Amino acid sequence: MTTKDLVAQIEKKKSFLCIGLDVDLNKIPKHLLNDEDPIFAFNKAIIDATYHLSVAYKPNTAFYEAYGLKGWKSLEKTIRYLNENYPEIFTIADAKRGDIGNTSTMYAKAFFEDLAFDSVTVAPYMGKDSIEPFLAFEKKHTILLALTSNQGAFDFQVKISEGKEIYKTVLETSKQWVNSQNLMYVVGATKAEYFKEIRKIVPTSFLLVPGVGAQGGSLHDVCKFGMAENIGLLVNSSRGIIYASQEHDFAQAAAQAASNLQSQMEVILNDR
Amino acid sequence: MTTKDLVAQIEKKKSFLCIGLDVDLNKIPKHLLNDEDPIFAFNKAIIDATYHLSVAYKPNTAFYEAYGLKGWKSLEKTIRYLNENYPEIFTIADAKRGDIGNTSTMYAKAFFEDLAFDSVTVAPYMGKDSIEPFLAFEKKHTILLALTSNQGAFDFQVKISEGKEIYKTVLETSKQWVNSQNLMYVVGATKAEYFKEIRKIVPTSFLLVPGVGAQGGSLHDVCKFGMAENIGLLVNSSRGIIYASQEHDFAQAAAQAASNLQSQMEVILNDR
Repeated sequence: MTTKDLVAQIEKKKSFLCIGLDVDLNKIPKHLLNDEDPIFAFNKAIIDATYHLSVAYKPNTAFYEAYGLKGWKSLEKTIRYLNENYPEIFTIADAKRGDIGNTSTMYAKAFFEDLAFDSVTVAPYMGKDSIEPFLAFEKKHTILLALTSNQGAFDFQVKISEGKEIYKTVLETSKQWVNSQNLMYVVGATKAEYFKEIRKIVPTSFLLVPGVGAQGGSLHDVCKFGMAENIGLLVNSSRGIIYASQEHDFAQAAAQAASNLQSQMEVILNDR
Repeated sequence: MTTKDLVAQIEKKKSFLCIGLDVDLNKIPKHLLNDEDPIFAFNKAIIDATYHLSVAYKPNTAFYEAYGLKGWKSLEKTIRYLNENYPEIFTIADAKRGDIGNTSTMYAKAFFEDLAFDSVTVAPYMGKDSIEPFLAFEKKHTILLALTSNQGAFDFQVKISEGKEIYKTVLETSKQWVNSQNLMYVVGATKAEYFKEIRKIVPTSFLLVPGVGAQGGSLHDVCKFGMAENIGLLVNSSRGIIYASQEHDFAQAAAQAASNLQSQMEVILNDR
């Protein structure tokens, strides 16, 4: 999918919502546990109930790998279901991968070719040759961790080197990489005041923003400081939507929670 | 496995060799491609031919994920084969994972519980709460990227902040984390002169050292500057051993390549 297609979808749906499919078998409705593939059954119901309100889905691979072969199968079924039934949706493998060159190519093949995701999240620690193999794939997007939404972000990401925080060095350096036009960035919503600075470095890049909802970030502040001319934001909510109810009405409850966020986004988009 | 068990195995085998199982179907002997599971068939032959010369095996997850569900199954069969037939071997999932707390717990379950690896490699960018969930597992080891063997290591890892390189801050900070005794570190062999400085910060921690062989690092220099009282080194070779021959004699050729490294290690261990 191209960035243009993504922006068109956002304008059409009046939404820049991404729904995180972080499925924990201890948290899904009990009646689904009798299903042959409870994780996929859950995802399918959530997707069918919310696809008109969101533009992206983001399964976090950890939640699938934890269930071994069965979990990987559920991930495969989920991405195939999305690609076959909702081809306009932007899909994100939240995998936070990254390794030396030839190994990153294998990860890129796993997520871009075998599973056919539109994008994958990657970690910057190993530098240029760990990320460029991902960037080489056409119409695919590589979402680089810049400033994350957790407490540990303060351990290394904001250390000052050469007069600026490491996460700013990550943003600036990554712009020099081959095919950097295929980069997006993860920036946590819990640090909305940082968006102003970040937009000076990457004025138009799409930012994937976790941390609204369960982690306490403000949608209003993120948009105030982070929205670009081409919108440039994908705001993710996981637990706040998918676990809105743990009863038989879980899909409707998820749709209601997604609708609450989408409505706020619609107001923000109309007020531009 | 405890660190004590690992050291005992090293002393017994006179080897601190780790063999990287980075299996690319384009590089294995053609006759294996007729096997129902070529990756596992290849791994099994390599392991059976080399287990007496090495103390650890390290499948890199990228090479399995690239083949989707089938690849994940090959990974599962490989680790089960190792655990059932060679329980003394130290097993490393080279996965370079890391995410916010509850998600890292899922990754830890995937590798420590579902697949039953002894250890997993993790990336430091997201800080303390992304790593401590791994450290909580008893008799399991978490191998943190410190200074990697690739060119991109110079992009961020050696940036100077507060008077020292970021990778040193990673080492120092990680020592403060809960259950930090379960940490090991990745340090690339291509930067042997750095080991002296690293040993000042982590004098006894085990270091997993890639980069000897194909990437050009010197075993002698690594040991000169990096060996600790409890040895504290696992030196990895992947391509140099597993692709020593691409013909029918691939397993014997791998054993010969492993034996060459083990012999050098035996001399070094005897000369201590």
